[in-house]
Amino acid sequence: MKHNFGAGPGILPQQVLQEAAQAVINFNNSGLSILEISHRSPDFEAVMDEARALVKELLNLGDNYSVMFLHGGASSQFAMLPYNLLGENETAAYLDSGTWANKAIKEAKFFGKVNVVASSKESNYTFIPKDYEIPKDARYFHVTSNNTIYGTQIHQFPESPVPLVSDMSSDIFSREFDANKFGLIYAGAQKNMGPAGVALVIVRNDLVGTVERAIPSMFNYKLHIENGSMYNTPPVFAVYVSMLTLRWVKAQGGIKAMEKINNEKAAKLYAEIDRNTLFKGTCAVEDRSRMNVCFVMNSPEQEKEFLNFAKERDCVGLKGHRSVGGFRASIYNALPLSSVEHLVKAMQDFEKIGSSKPELSMK
Amino acid sequence: MKHNFGAGPGILPQQVLQEAAQAVINFNNSGLSILEISHRSPDFEAVMDEARALVKELLNLGDNYSVMFLHGGASSQFAMLPYNLLGENETAAYLDSGTWANKAIKEAKFFGKVNVVASSKESNYTFIPKDYEIPKDARYFHVTSNNTIYGTQIHQFPESPVPLVSDMSSDIFSREFDANKFGLIYAGAQKNMGPAGVALVIVRNDLVGTVERAIPSMFNYKLHIENGSMYNTPPVFAVYVSMLTLRWVKAQGGIKAMEKINNEKAAKLYAEIDRNTLFKGTCAVEDRSRMNVCFVMNSPEQEKEFLNFAKERDCVGLKGHRSVGGFRASIYNALPLSSVEHLVKAMQDFEKIGSSKPELSMK
Repeated sequence: MKHNFGAGPGILPQQVLQEAAQAVINFNNSGLSILEISHRSPDFEAVMDEARALVKELLNLGDNYSVMFLHGGASSQFAMLPYNLLGENETAAYLDSGTWANKAIKEAKFFGKVNVVASSKESNYTFIPKDYEIPKDARYFHVTSNNTIYGTQIHQFPESPVPLVSDMSSDIFSREFDANKFGLIYAGAQKNMGPAGVALVIVRNDLVGTVERAIPSMFNYKLHIENGSMYNTPPVFAVYVSMLTLRWVKAQGGIKAMEKINNEKAAKLYAEIDRNTLFKGTCAVEDRSRMNVCFVMNSPEQEKEFLNFAKERDCVGLKGHRSVGGFRASIYNALPLSSVEHLVKAMQDFEKIGSSKPELSMK
Repeated sequence: MKHNFGAGPGILPQQVLQEAAQAVINFNNSGLSILEISHRSPDFEAVMDEARALVKELLNLGDNYSVMFLHGGASSQFAMLPYNLLGENETAAYLDSGTWANKAIKEAKFFGKVNVVASSKESNYTFIPKDYEIPKDARYFHVTSNNTIYGTQIHQFPESPVPLVSDMSSDIFSREFDANKFGLIYAGAQKNMGPAGVALVIVRNDLVGTVERAIPSMFNYKLHIENGSMYNTPPVFAVYVSMLTLRWVKAQGGIKAMEKINNEKAAKLYAEIDRNTLFKGTCAVEDRSRMNVCFVMNSPEQEKEFLNFAKERDCVGLKGHRSVGGFRASIYNALPLSSVEHLVKAMQDFEKIGSSKPELSMK
């Protein structure tokens, strides 16, 4: 068994993978594969309905929200969001807290004006900026709830005088929060919800259809809502696996239960990073992500060695993003606590070897 | 075993489904699922490279073409095509040969001017218009190679003085044609290539980056080409299954072999429709599609009965689109000849029952 710490597409529950594989051969005992059935069949319509209902239930969303499953990932939403919500002469406020926030800003500029209220770019995004004011005349305020690459996370969402919008690709369904405080939430599926190829978009209904521009059908939220995410053939399999994963989250006890174990996983790993003489964290302690744990070695020349050491122990996907270096342990919902314990043990063992064989740690 | 005549998402080869299910559990013996590996992993990069190379090889494409696998289906390309190729004050020519052609026209109008050179809409799209002139100053000329809903197909592509563009969603890889005569070809995967959630786009390089407007990243062909369809996380599983299906097409003997058996399937089925006293075709004989065979009954009140009769014999997905009624047998690449023979037998048996029990055919 591999311990999959990959940042995304990330680990999915074993049970979900088994069910998904079965459906590729024979879906719902229909004698047909989930890959070759009509999206208009009652069996798939039930999947789409359940997926959307589970999102509403798990997040306690009010009736004034619509839930969509759309083609593409968060990157498509970087453009679709301002396409639908930001008029050409209007301004949207953005928080620049990482690479993906920065990309979202870049795309919004194709559609309207952007006011970047704060940025931690100059410190290589090692913290979440907190000292800023949200302009009252902004169309919306956009934040990235969790910065996958830098391992920072917004632990307290700001009170916003304008609709709060968040890219939650890497931490949705991982912790409790009041979703009803948001104007729009979007997330690529491939970290905590499903496979790559589908994005979840949750929008407060009064924000839809407010912009003046003409929007081509496939980029138009209104049309997708009116058609129950079936305006065109949806990414059937990705929606199905997302639905299975949401079912799994519910069966585990919902988001509350997920958060409890996620906190436990994060606490164990950060404790070891802070204790172990060979390792150190890369970002501000108060902003540490409970999904993507970034760390480096005090002696960077040992990093390759530890990566191999961990790999021999079946810990995969640990290499940090090139813009941070070192390691990144992604500990998404589906990663069991035992995998974190396994990694912590590897770090401890590596420390012991290093201190007993100084020539190794000096390499 | 079911005989899957569904129009799409359509039938895929059994061998592909088996391999895909295996990869959902354990991809390339990595101990990880294809759903939870990084798209930047060498194993998946090899999949993407092979998928693109197979498209080039199967279609004998010259080096002056780029191949992309993009999120979404053909509907997304209805907009992306003019976004990238049609300036605001330029005109594109379109042939209106069916519902999807009509939708493509609608989307193009968001970006520039559209000249519909001919339409068969008034006759409920029962034929492919052939008497038209392609304006020499059009930016491109767009045709739908096969009309899934109406069961018509262009058997001879026009000589065009401007770049020829085609939506080939429902017949790509099903018959030989000179792909190098086209400026751009696109196809949603879910009929002849793979599962829903990915579109193939083939473009002649000189057409890319010629329009003046600023294009958001995810809608920009140039960026996707430069990044080898990995600008963002691609729909990993849909690309993988498409690659497996393209491998299968190659192993069958390529498009030449596919065409031979497809022609045989179509000939058998149309022969029975023409012979059987109960059934008749719905569209112009010379434009009959070899992928989607549309037919009705001389006594429409018998149609429900035949649908049930066929279903009892495991023929599924036969119900015609609501705009045509009757039946549609989609006989895509992966549908074996034996399934067509099975359906033909059902039609013959139904005819016999009807003639021996007149009260049944009179219902």
